[in-house]
Amino acid sequence: MHVLITGAAGFLGRRLAEHLLTRGRLTGPDGRERTIERLTLLDVVEPAVGTDDRVRHLVGDVADGALIESAVDRDTTSIFHLAAIVSGMAEADFDLGMRVNFDGTRTLLEVCRARGHRPRLVFTSSVAVFGGPLPATVLDTTALNPQSSYGTQKAMGELLINDYTRRGFVDGRALRLPTISVRPGRPNAALSSFASGIIREPLNGEAGICPVDPDARMWLLSPRAVIGCLVAGHELPPEAFGTDRAVSLPGISVTVGDMVAALERVAGPEVAARVRWERDARVAAMVATWPGELEARRARAMGFPGDDRIDDLIRQYMADELGVAPSGPAPHTAARNSSNC
Amino acid sequence: MHVLITGAAGFLGRRLAEHLLTRGRLTGPDGRERTIERLTLLDVVEPAVGTDDRVRHLVGDVADGALIESAVDRDTTSIFHLAAIVSGMAEADFDLGMRVNFDGTRTLLEVCRARGHRPRLVFTSSVAVFGGPLPATVLDTTALNPQSSYGTQKAMGELLINDYTRRGFVDGRALRLPTISVRPGRPNAALSSFASGIIREPLNGEAGICPVDPDARMWLLSPRAVIGCLVAGHELPPEAFGTDRAVSLPGISVTVGDMVAALERVAGPEVAARVRWERDARVAAMVATWPGELEARRARAMGFPGDDRIDDLIRQYMADELGVAPSGPAPHTAARNSSNC
Repeated sequence: MHVLITGAAGFLGRRLAEHLLTRGRLTGPDGRERTIERLTLLDVVEPAVGTDDRVRHLVGDVADGALIESAVDRDTTSIFHLAAIVSGMAEADFDLGMRVNFDGTRTLLEVCRARGHRPRLVFTSSVAVFGGPLPATVLDTTALNPQSSYGTQKAMGELLINDYTRRGFVDGRALRLPTISVRPGRPNAALSSFASGIIREPLNGEAGICPVDPDARMWLLSPRAVIGCLVAGHELPPEAFGTDRAVSLPGISVTVGDMVAALERVAGPEVAARVRWERDARVAAMVATWPGELEARRARAMGFPGDDRIDDLIRQYMADELGVAPSGPAPHTAARNSSNC
Repeated sequence: MHVLITGAAGFLGRRLAEHLLTRGRLTGPDGRERTIERLTLLDVVEPAVGTDDRVRHLVGDVADGALIESAVDRDTTSIFHLAAIVSGMAEADFDLGMRVNFDGTRTLLEVCRARGHRPRLVFTSSVAVFGGPLPATVLDTTALNPQSSYGTQKAMGELLINDYTRRGFVDGRALRLPTISVRPGRPNAALSSFASGIIREPLNGEAGICPVDPDARMWLLSPRAVIGCLVAGHELPPEAFGTDRAVSLPGISVTVGDMVAALERVAGPEVAARVRWERDARVAAMVATWPGELEARRARAMGFPGDDRIDDLIRQYMADELGVAPSGPAPHTAARNSSNC
């Protein structure tokens, strides 16, 4: 089988590629496990993934039909569509967001439809599809009401995934990702970038700027757990989804103040003191439209993995990115997390 | 001010055009009433509307950017976007539905954005945006989960209307229409066509074929009330909509059996006996995915007009299309209905 990852140069794309190369197998359209013979990594830049004979790189724009034509053949039975313009950039450049986040998704779905082989397609949506006056805990039955262009484009992508699946053009699965924390690397244009930065930068000896108030509530998922969710979303049988291919993934609900308190517990007061509260009204206003807590009952019942505690997210970053051996978490928690990916 | 109606050759488009020509005025972007100087009627065929110096006809496809460019100028401060491929046809021809129902809406929004004058734009959505496992009464907060391509395209249109409005490109209002009954004329390719046919055809001495079971529940609105709703949706101030420009209109919830019983009450057993029950599994399955009852609390609070009883819908058709003077309904009901349009 051939596997395609779009947005493969991003943090999640690279992690997923490495995970799939190690895993070596995925379920095919007939429900039976198959060997991954080729992994096509598509992005606007070539991702830094270790050399592997199975890997093919494609560089270009996901909204470019000719490129997508060359990326998907009839053996491409698994697609992970992660390519996206992040929230802050999609808000700043409406046309770019529409072209990549919406037209890119539509182009990919159209190419799959033309091939006629009904691949499994995992699409990363976002909690930014929710907004407006929300209940304290968002349910699986709560109406989408995005208050950003990014959330709008993701919500339209979910609708396309559902209809293309219902019509038998693809076997789609749209996963609404919580904010991923702690991401490695540098800050990006995602409005949620601070949710990694306020942990990561202090651990690296730098100031972590927090543009929202301490009581702002976030819905978080760790890098390991999200890779586990992407694979689980692919592996589930079609009938597990019922009449809706969009699923809100499990997360943990914490305030930004909780996050900084956990950083102090895990890494000490000196590290936590590197967080600087510098409110940015634009960021704070947009973040306030996102849900801080979801029930995610459906995802849990379907077996999507999650995290237990904010402290574990911080320890996971320290272990995976800084090489600090875990000391704090209870053994059962560590074992559960490692089974997530 | 200039007013544009797309889909103007359809039943609602013609009714709305006649209503606006009589009304003569609409609220402008500044919140003040203005005189309608020009009414542009756009459709794939020229609508049969009485001669009026204010009327301009444009014949063509709503997804044709050049045509829309010529339809919207900076004086076009009010747009009623009714053009659509109906549900049955959008299900039979996916590409046609996407092109007209989705790309057509996007094209119109893009032209408005390019003009930069922020017109009021009323978009007709549908209860077909709901589907899947639904509560007995759909709430304003119930998640959209369309089970048809038509419903998907309308739901994506709602999302665009909301985002284009939030960004200040238009002042959009998306109204989710119940099934309109009783429509005059001939059956069409809408899967809900029978909801008019089982009343209209028997009243005209013909057999009315019913493709669904008597216990199928429908959410209905009369032609007079829907014209009242389209105008109300235009006239409401922007702030009345809060953070969601999509509104489920009020309706009445009746079973198809109730409709036939009302036909017998209003027109007699001989007329009602002309209904023939000929189940069509394809139609029955799709209709079963639509909600049979909505709370529509928000629309009622916003002042959108509705109907009182199924009997009145039948009498309204007899009065408006067959010239039968109303005899049955209580006087206050007739007065309320006539104030709706």
